[in-house]
Amino acid sequence: MKLLKEKIVNEGKVLSDTVLKVDSFLNHQIDPLLMKEIGEEFANRFSDQVITKILTIESSGIAPATMLGLTIGAPVVFARKRKSLTLSGNLFSATVHSFTKNETNEISVSKDFLTPEDNVLIIDDFLANGEAVKGLLDIVEQSGAQMIGVGIVIEKGFQKGGAALREQGIRVESLANIKSMSNGNVEFY
Amino acid sequence: MKLLKEKIVNEGKVLSDTVLKVDSFLNHQIDPLLMKEIGEEFANRFSDQVITKILTIESSGIAPATMLGLTIGAPVVFARKRKSLTLSGNLFSATVHSFTKNETNEISVSKDFLTPEDNVLIIDDFLANGEAVKGLLDIVEQSGAQMIGVGIVIEKGFQKGGAALREQGIRVESLANIKSMSNGNVEFY
Repeated sequence: MKLLKEKIVNEGKVLSDTVLKVDSFLNHQIDPLLMKEIGEEFANRFSDQVITKILTIESSGIAPATMLGLTIGAPVVFARKRKSLTLSGNLFSATVHSFTKNETNEISVSKDFLTPEDNVLIIDDFLANGEAVKGLLDIVEQSGAQMIGVGIVIEKGFQKGGAALREQGIRVESLANIKSMSNGNVEFY
Repeated sequence: MKLLKEKIVNEGKVLSDTVLKVDSFLNHQIDPLLMKEIGEEFANRFSDQVITKILTIESSGIAPATMLGLTIGAPVVFARKRKSLTLSGNLFSATVHSFTKNETNEISVSKDFLTPEDNVLIIDDFLANGEAVKGLLDIVEQSGAQMIGVGIVIEKGFQKGGAALREQGIRVESLANIKSMSNGNVEFY
């Protein structure tokens, strides 16, 4: 996706060979028009599928997932990273380790919003080691819903997550797939 | 906002005289079309103002804030509840106590995304005791930006937050303002 790649090159900050900061449009400040175009691009990529539910994880997945939901007319469910008092019991849960934040969270989704009748597309902002997506896949499997695939805004293709998912036969569509970030330059596949 | 009030009456679950669960369209599952209409309604309410930045807080404020941002062409910044390794230093911070979750968080916004030139509208999903909004106001004040007002999806008008803000001269626009939830019935102002 050309507009996204330009945004990454122009506004992304390469903090190391593996860390890319895109806080100006995706992870802290959000560019709503770019999110809309990302939502439309996901809709195009998966236009051969009937999606009844979009599953993402708080917080940075919410904006692109909601724009996709608006485009195709499907509800979004975001997995929560901790239990809150108003979201107790009746949950599908999985454990996710975040290498960026160096912490392990339990993520959970209410059983009210994922059923065996659902066709689920997973959306997330980043794919690196694939930990978050693995947790979401676990939750989809627990629910008995059908997995359609995974839509990622930015994949770090030089890390192992995407390859591992594709080897399992899971369809992964990344709107920008980064080959390397050596010497502060972002190169795409 | 009629559509929102209908949704609250039809899908909201009154768990006690003070706790309303709207997990089916706002706080866990998200109804993207409703979020779009909410964004447009906020744009109408504040159409007399020039907004350069929308400030919200993760996670449930993100969807309505992003739809408002799309409508008026302004970026959204969401305050983070904990520091992450890629969001360090250079922060405006405030402390927020959540009565719902019974925990106190530090919220923070990068100094890169709020400046004295900004005209800021705060958006949040709920207003009850007003703790989250107070934290966001504190951050806007630290930044030197101009405060335009506060847009709330659901105000619990029987709690003190909204009255306290209005007494301070802050403009608060709530799309649904709840008068009481006694006996499991939601009554609006």
